[in-house]
Amino acid sequence: MRLRNLKNNSELINNCNFLVKSPDEYKGKWKENFVNSENPIHLEIGMGKGKFIYEMAKKYPNINFIGLEKYDNVMARAIKKMPEMLPNLLLINTDALNIASIFDHEISTVYLNFSDPWPKKRHANRRLTSETFLAIYDHIFKDENIIIQKTDNILLFGYSLQSLSMYGYKFKEVTLDLANTDIPNVTTEYEEKFMNEGTKINYLYAIK
Amino acid sequence: MRLRNLKNNSELINNCNFLVKSPDEYKGKWKENFVNSENPIHLEIGMGKGKFIYEMAKKYPNINFIGLEKYDNVMARAIKKMPEMLPNLLLINTDALNIASIFDHEISTVYLNFSDPWPKKRHANRRLTSETFLAIYDHIFKDENIIIQKTDNILLFGYSLQSLSMYGYKFKEVTLDLANTDIPNVTTEYEEKFMNEGTKINYLYAIK
Repeated sequence: MRLRNLKNNSELINNCNFLVKSPDEYKGKWKENFVNSENPIHLEIGMGKGKFIYEMAKKYPNINFIGLEKYDNVMARAIKKMPEMLPNLLLINTDALNIASIFDHEISTVYLNFSDPWPKKRHANRRLTSETFLAIYDHIFKDENIIIQKTDNILLFGYSLQSLSMYGYKFKEVTLDLANTDIPNVTTEYEEKFMNEGTKINYLYAIK
Repeated sequence: MRLRNLKNNSELINNCNFLVKSPDEYKGKWKENFVNSENPIHLEIGMGKGKFIYEMAKKYPNINFIGLEKYDNVMARAIKKMPEMLPNLLLINTDALNIASIFDHEISTVYLNFSDPWPKKRHANRRLTSETFLAIYDHIFKDENIIIQKTDNILLFGYSLQSLSMYGYKFKEVTLDLANTDIPNVTTEYEEKFMNEGTKINYLYAIK
């Protein structure tokens, strides 16, 4: 059963014509992969089942989007759920640790939605807002660095505020209760669940 | 009844020998008011009934503390509750808006504990972390600016993070659940109540 699943996953991934198979080859020239090549490129790291990135691409046709997901089975589910190919959306199936060899100063905004909080202190550098990752992101941003994070996890959120701030980011927006603001918001699958349960969503918009 | 109370309040305030009556007169020479004049001076703005500042002064004899409270009746209660004069604690009965005419680059740390959140947008500049106040604080800090804030109010906390960050402060510490950290903490009256109710306390340590 496990093998069958794996086979289906890799078939889905291999046959998907909007998933880029050898992303390193496009380093420095990602814009050529999009119909409207002069539009800014936004990247979601850890796109999960893809609801957010797909809806963002539908909603903002003048932005090019890339969704990154490291787990094959999650990526396969995302592909299955996407009703059609969009001219401004591409997917990459890899680990966030690799992005400095995939992008060269060509990303305008990074989205981090409900990332793994890695709650143990000894795993802190695996958090997507650790100094390790912030140093990686410096290689991929084009002009300003813009990171937009949403999370229900207060440990991760406090950590992110501290880490981003000490790294030189400023916060143009911060809220501990996204639902009670007028910040435009496309929800993720997780987020819908949390909001139905009354869990407050933390949000930051960081710029460097 | 009201008059009687007021009379008692002003008597308490006038007779208190550790409340400084004409604080403007000491601008630039506050250290002379303390026995250990070379110790750093920490200021709590809005000390309420004074539990925090009094316990801090007991706990940290090598720091000189000043507690500021604008309301007479609150100040009077604080004085009543303080069991004895301490060599490293003074009080001031005035509005935070006046502090730039009271201090001249002589404060090391400012504490903002459970400040009024002023929830309405049109009152935002009354919040003690608004740009209005941050500009005032620039006149009172000695070397680095250090602001330590605690609040249960998530609107105020989000606002503070944004406002301080955009003003150039960095966050050495941020937590959305102070009780679950090892940050040393002296509680206020309000805080004890909140903690007993299970309300999470937000904390930031900002430096500029």
